[in-house]
This record gives sequence, C-alpha cells and structure tokens, in this order.
Amino acid sequence: MSTHSDSSPADAVPADSRSADRVPVLKLKRGEDHRVRAGHLWVFSNEVDTKATPLTGFERGASVRVHTDRDEFIGYAYVNPNSLIAARIVSRDASQPLDSALLHRRVASALRLRESLYQRPYYRLVFGESDRLPGLVVDRYGDLLVAQSATAGMDALRPAIEAALAAAVGEHRLVWKNDSGARALEGLAQFVEAAAGAVPRDVTVHEGAATFTAPLTDGQKTGWFYDQAINRDRLLRYLPAGARVLDVCSYVGAWAVSALVAGASDALCVDSSTQALEYAERNAVANSVRVRTRKADAFDALRTLAAERARFDVVILDPPAFIKRRKDAPQGQAAYRKLNQLALALLEDGGLLVSCSCSYHLSVEELMHAVQGAARQSGRFVQVLESGGQAPDHPLHPAVFETRYLKALFCRVTDDSAADASRQS
Amino acid sequence: MSTHSDSSPADAVPADSRSADRVPVLKLKRGEDHRVRAGHLWVFSNEVDTKATPLTGFERGASVRVHTDRDEFIGYAYVNPNSLIAARIVSRDASQPLDSALLHRRVASALRLRESLYQRPYYRLVFGESDRLPGLVVDRYGDLLVAQSATAGMDALRPAIEAALAAAVGEHRLVWKNDSGARALEGLAQFVEAAAGAVPRDVTVHEGAATFTAPLTDGQKTGWFYDQAINRDRLLRYLPAGARVLDVCSYVGAWAVSALVAGASDALCVDSSTQALEYAERNAVANSVRVRTRKADAFDALRTLAAERARFDVVILDPPAFIKRRKDAPQGQAAYRKLNQLALALLEDGGLLVSCSCSYHLSVEELMHAVQGAARQSGRFVQVLESGGQAPDHPLHPAVFETRYLKALFCRVTDDSAADASRQS
Repeated sequence: MSTHSDSSPADAVPADSRSADRVPVLKLKRGEDHRVRAGHLWVFSNEVDTKATPLTGFERGASVRVHTDRDEFIGYAYVNPNSLIAARIVSRDASQPLDSALLHRRVASALRLRESLYQRPYYRLVFGESDRLPGLVVDRYGDLLVAQSATAGMDALRPAIEAALAAAVGEHRLVWKNDSGARALEGLAQFVEAAAGAVPRDVTVHEGAATFTAPLTDGQKTGWFYDQAINRDRLLRYLPAGARVLDVCSYVGAWAVSALVAGASDALCVDSSTQALEYAERNAVANSVRVRTRKADAFDALRTLAAERARFDVVILDPPAFIKRRKDAPQGQAAYRKLNQLALALLEDGGLLVSCSCSYHLSVEELMHAVQGAARQSGRFVQVLESGGQAPDHPLHPAVFETRYLKALFCRVTDDSAADASRQS
Repeated sequence: MSTHSDSSPADAVPADSRSADRVPVLKLKRGEDHRVRAGHLWVFSNEVDTKATPLTGFERGASVRVHTDRDEFIGYAYVNPNSLIAARIVSRDASQPLDSALLHRRVASALRLRESLYQRPYYRLVFGESDRLPGLVVDRYGDLLVAQSATAGMDALRPAIEAALAAAVGEHRLVWKNDSGARALEGLAQFVEAAAGAVPRDVTVHEGAATFTAPLTDGQKTGWFYDQAINRDRLLRYLPAGARVLDVCSYVGAWAVSALVAGASDALCVDSSTQALEYAERNAVANSVRVRTRKADAFDALRTLAAERARFDVVILDPPAFIKRRKDAPQGQAAYRKLNQLALALLEDGGLLVSCSCSYHLSVEELMHAVQGAARQSGRFVQVLESGGQAPDHPLHPAVFETRYLKALFCRVTDDSAADASRQS
C-alpha cells in the first residue's frame, strides 16, 4: 500500500546560514507575539499580518523569519498558507536558520537524550515539537527507523532530515509512514514508502523482559506504542502474583504479554481487530506464555464478560482517543465513564484498574472524574495510586501543552456498599 | 515538648451499630448534596440547613448522620461546629456507622494496600481522606507509628483509632504528633505525646538502598517525607553516572544521599536549618558516602553558587509550599519561577532539573509554566521527561482533589541561545 505523494512542496532548506538573510519575513499582528515568545511553536493564520505579509505569497513548506509587528525577530519557521497553523517555529536563534546544520543538531540532541534513557535502540527518537522538530515523528526499532511527517514544512525538509538521521544513527533502514489523517489538514497525500529498498511488513520491539512483533504497514501509528512503555513497566509494580488480567483494546497484546511474563496467571485480550489479536497470540507464544483473545467491540465485550460472571484482578483500559476534537468532549467523557463503569463491574475487591486516555482534550482531572463517577455508580471505592503520563522518549514541551496527551491512572478498587450504590442517582 | 491537649471533645463512637439510630441528623440545604454525593467527604458550614439542624447543637467531634433536604441518608460523618469544614463523611453505608468496627475495617484496608506495595514496613499507613479516615495521618517506621490528628472528630476517636492500629499492626509504639497548624482551625491545642512510654528523639527509615535517621519531635511533619520516595526512586533512572548533585531545601539529605549511594560523585545539600544539615551529614556517613552542606536561604544560596561559578549535572528543588492559601498564588508562582531560574543558571548543558512543588494551590500546569518562564528568561530549553506525583502510600481520592498536592517535574535542560535570551523581555 505504498503510493507516492502528489505534493511538491518547496525545498525550504537554505544552502547555508549566509543565505538566511534572504529568507522572507512573516509578520505577526500587534499583540500576537506573546504566546510564541513564551515558548509555543505555533503561529495561527489569524495571527499573521496578512496585509504586510500575505500568506498567499508563500509556497507551502517554505522557510520564513517570524517578526513582530515592530519587526523584531522571533524565530525561524516553516509555513503552510493553507493550514490553520500557518507557521511552526524551528529556531529562535537569529544565527541558526532552518538549514541542514540545524536539523543535524536537533536530531543529534534528540538521539543523545534517548541514548541516555534507554539501553537498547527501541524508542521514539524524535517527538515533533518537543524536540523542536515540529511535525516530525521518528520511531526507532533497532536499525529500522519509521518516520512520520505531518506537515508540508517537514515534507519539504525530507532530504535534509534523511541526511541528519543517517549522520546521527549510522547505518539504518528508513520508512516514511506518512499515512496519518493529520496530513489532510496540510493538503498532503497519504502514503507509505521506504527511503530505500522495500517496506518491511513488521517491526520487532524489545521492551522490558519481552519481545514483540507488530504490523508496520497495516499497524496503528508506526506499529508500536512506545508512549505506554513506562506505564507497562509501572504495572509490574502493582501486579499481584498470579493475577488474572483483562487487556481491553489490547492491539498486539503488549500489556497482556508483559503481565504474563511478569507472573500473571491468565490474560484475556479484547480487540476489534482480528489481525491485532493474531499478533497478540504470536507475541505470547514468542515469549513462552499464552493469551486468550476475544474479537469484539470493547463495550460489548465488557458487557458479555459481566453476563458470564467473569472476574479479574487487573483490568487495563487503553482505548483509542474518544475525543478527537474539542467539540466531542461531552460524548467522549460519557464514553470514558461508561467504559470504566463496565470495567469496575469485572474487578475483584482490591483489584487494580489501569485506566488510560490518549485524548489530548481530556485532562487527567476529567479522567479521574470519569473514573470516580463510574465508581459511585458501581458502589466501588477507588484510590488513585499513581497517575502516569507518556514515556520520557515522548517528552513534554512545557510551553506546548498539545505535546501532553497520555494519561494512565493506576487505581485500587475496593467494594463500597451496595446500599450506597442503589441510593446513587 | 510534649504538652497535653486542652480540648475535651465528645467521645463520638457509638458502642455498637445498633446505637446508630440514635446518632443525630445533620441536614443539608437544598442542592448542597451534589458534591458530597459525587464522592467528596467535606460538608462546608454554609451548606448546612442550620434552621433545621443548628451547628451549635452539636458537640465538637460528635458523630452525625448527614441527610439531604429531603431527608435522604447520605452518610455518617463527624462534625465541628466551629470549623469551616463543618462535617467530614466517614461512611456512606447506612449499616456502617462511625464505630470501632468501621475504624478497624478502614485501618485494615489501609494496611492491606501498603503491604501489597512495600516489602518493608516503612510507609504512610493512613492518608486521611484518601483512606476514608478524614483528618488522620499515620506514618509507619517499622514498629514505630507516628500519628497526626487534624480534626476534633479524629481527636474524639483517639481510643478507637489506637485500638484499630493495635489490631492491624500488632505490637508497636505510637506517638501522636499533633503539632500541625491546621489544628488551630479546629480549635485544638498542639502537642506531641506517646500513647505509651516516651517520645523517641528520632525515626529511622529504610528507603531504596539507603537508611536514614530524621528528627521526630523537632522534625518536619512526622519526621520523614514518604511522599517523595517514589520521586527519589525516579531520579535514579535519570541520574548520570558520576553526577554532581545540588539538593536545594535538602532537609535531612534524602535526595542527596540516595543519589550518592546510586553513584553520584558529589552532592551539596542546601538548607536553612543547621539541625537538618547535621542529620544530612550523619545520614551520608551512615551510608558510607559524604555530602557537602551549606546553611542558607535557598534563593541566597543559588545566587552565591552562581557567583562562585559552580555547575551541577543535577539540581533538585524541593522547597516548602510557597502557596499556603489561594490568595498567595501570584506571589507564590513568582517565587517558583525565580527559584527555577536561579537553578537553571547552575545546570550544565544537558543537565537534569528536578522541580518539585507541594503547594496544593499550584497545578502541575502552573509549575510547568513557572519552569518554562524561567527557561525563557535563562536562554535554556526544557523538556519535561516525566511528571511525578506523590508516592502510592499517599493515594489520591478521585473526588477529593485536595488529596493531590505533590508535583515533581523531571526536566532535561539544554542550551537554547544567548542571542535568544537577551531578546526575551
């Protein structure tokens, strides 16, 4: 399913920094520089002084200098005249324009961080805005890099990015998995292609004490969810010996297999994808354990398990984002509450609920509120033992809260009282 | 410095549950039951229907049944007619009044959780509202329990609490360290006294690979800060080998000594208390390492170190709460920002900042904002690798956000550019 892009964005990389003076200016309206000066990287189209610098005057993906209304330099950025996010800052240093040298430094810095954090080369190597490489994600699977560009600006930088990755990582294979829906916002086509050679079917990951295979071309994201690695490691702290584990929205079984390898006695993976469950079963076998699987919608599966009087010591809820846009928040919050309520009904007294959300538009407080509402409905008492976020290879940019999206609540669930629950409206 | 309480609250414990019917009713105003029904434990004095049930009609610490305006039972609580928090819910089950049996179950449940989490008996055994024992804190140091009662209701339950602790823990020593300022809000005296025998001068703690001694009677809180244990453990993940560590507001050196035991090459403890630094030095020696100490105000010390051109690979900021009341938030936020700015100036490129706040009135977003503001001022770039909260022996009650107070940001700090910093207003 590898098709070619129909986009032909400008090559935005100046040959060297002396050409920086020739980079055109993008001027902000008066008062619209505060957020960017505070550290955010995005310039919205309505913040641009389009009388002074019409967005239509820029090629998609072109490099610009962002100036205030008083013509003070703020930073170098790349633009997309057709996107709500008109420009993304890549450098705040007037002596460091968006050129190959900058990209080399950014990628090298990103690699240094991951090499300090991980003993093995399995991690997210580049996390977009948080690594000051807005619009770019690179996941590393040993010698295989899977990159994702979300913007015309990053597409324009592709040759320079490829060179920077080669310089930092050394010999490697590279696949561009440019199939995310976000590309449509930038007017970009979706495609998957190898920088050289063929696109492998699978990726292989070493995480904790286990090894996994996940589908690359047909898989979610780049194949693996490195963001949850730290939370899967946290789970081991709370996992009772011999636990019966339910892994809801299991994908390829990362939570379930990790738990089994760590001593769980039984694990059931629920997912709506037959292919994901086949990978989960293979991953179990490859780690000398066994998972049960059930292909079903998560809500349906939890209702069925309740009807079957199934009980678990640990339930993990790791659903896809129920809130993709702000306007979906009310329905999304109700969905999180319902899913958690169905999970609580299956937990033993003293059991563990791992309740996750990857919805940026759901705060951790709102997730706690959903879990608490579910608990009150169910006559259970919940204590949040730990509140985890995304793994450190997905660092947060403290000025760009959009980089912070993953929540994982580790909750102890005990019985409250039936009398209480029945009284709850 | 052990003095006796001058309070003589009512003994609120009914002899058995049959006496529950005789427990008087505290009636809420119409519409004031929603928060408590959603799971919060506090009833504020302005929510009480004082025409139907005048607060002055209750003895301080007395047991009540909380009813809605339509006389629906919500839960059992204890009251303090003189406090802003007029009542705290202890049970939502009509068949489980506030009696010895309930306290036994609550303490036993709290102990089960900690025994599942910790291999050694060093932890916060009871964390107030989060363990449905509002107003009570119990820290465990092996066979020594140090308890703190913050309310008249808990004072009234003291004999029953002591019995419940004895039943759960077995043979132990118990000290009531009722010296917190919060007791004044309840009209209670401050005192420290042993339930039996003498009050020990010190507590001893085993945490991670180290052993510590901390002052009990003269110390902060119960002597030790178990809430940060999980973050001290997290530090080890990010600690570079041979790191030079600065521990600001070090108290008895827990962060510094843990880091040294894990391989840091040097650690400087800064604290305003000579006594705390003496303990830090002794704790280092007891663990076969050596700390340097400096008695100074944190802000002054950081300025002096900058003047001395001192540099560190890791700086830990673990200050006391700068925001004790909501109205102090603006000044407090400025203080956090300033402290972080001073710390950033001492960090090597690629260094680690551990920035903590125990101010309930400062959100994690506000702490990130303070760090980010400091970074922009300093020409540094910050990535938040992990955002830690309090240890799981301090669980969060998901309906009582007041139980959530500790933040610890693990930040990678790299150089941005001097040009950029000088341009920052």
